[in-house]
Amino acid sequence: MEFELNSSINILSQTPNTLSSLLTNLPESWLNSNEGAETWSPKQILNHLVHGERTDWVSRIKVILSENDDKSFKPFDREGSVIVRDKSILQILDDFRIEREKSLAFLFSLEIKETDHMKTGVHPEFGEVTLKQLISTWAVHDLGHIAQICRVLAKQYKEEVGPWVNYLSILTR
Amino acid sequence: MEFELNSSINILSQTPNTLSSLLTNLPESWLNSNEGAETWSPKQILNHLVHGERTDWVSRIKVILSENDDKSFKPFDREGSVIVRDKSILQILDDFRIEREKSLAFLFSLEIKETDHMKTGVHPEFGEVTLKQLISTWAVHDLGHIAQICRVLAKQYKEEVGPWVNYLSILTR
Repeated sequence: MEFELNSSINILSQTPNTLSSLLTNLPESWLNSNEGAETWSPKQILNHLVHGERTDWVSRIKVILSENDDKSFKPFDREGSVIVRDKSILQILDDFRIEREKSLAFLFSLEIKETDHMKTGVHPEFGEVTLKQLISTWAVHDLGHIAQICRVLAKQYKEEVGPWVNYLSILTR
Repeated sequence: MEFELNSSINILSQTPNTLSSLLTNLPESWLNSNEGAETWSPKQILNHLVHGERTDWVSRIKVILSENDDKSFKPFDREGSVIVRDKSILQILDDFRIEREKSLAFLFSLEIKETDHMKTGVHPEFGEVTLKQLISTWAVHDLGHIAQICRVLAKQYKEEVGPWVNYLSILTR
């Protein structure tokens, strides 16, 4: 599929609802369970998404579209803000919804044209990347973490499904 | 996590909203794209979920809780109804919502008690399985297909993300 700004924005706009639907009405124990050592719980994944909205995606778009000569991105702290502070899931879901709305409002305000899609910034590891790649990555990053949350939740029932574990590939990934 | 009927029902109740959120407002081309030969598109996955509601989960619960001596399940046609007929995504999402509501209304009407959790039916492949295992599987099956839909959607941008493909494990699974 070729990059399309509207499709990407649609995916990004839907994520707050998708996450609310997945994570509301679950007991706290599910929200704090992970896949084992060095893995994240649904609450930690959600905090990571909030952190990305606050520090990463929009600031990199700004760099790409700025008039500055220096187009280097700040490295993104991928472990940043993963620590679950004393917030309820509803508060973090709200934080994410608000931050995402702000990000998208900013994105709309830019009136990005097709000629902007190939503008570039400099990634600390990969070097030159385009606006199109950055926005595509933002959407795929959402989908990846929604899938991860499903997997973390599913794994809590790994024993409980009994012999069906053989049919449920999400449990053995 | 130990099986809990309420948590399982919560997961099952949320799936229609989660799927609507993920699949509304996307262009038809995304809804019909898959991961390559012999893989399903989001629309086909959704049809599979509708088919499961109509023919599989509830009928197996009935078998387990029935007074009959014969407790064997009918084999589930896992490829059944995957063919996309001439229905829009909104129609299939609606079908799923209605079928899931019916399933859950039926589940509530059973007033399942903890003493029922270990009642058994006979799976065509695994032999004896419990009600608890069946309901856990139903919830995990939902989560597996939500994750699969995220993955199928994400893969449509596999080229578009450029060098970020290395950071996005959902694209290489």
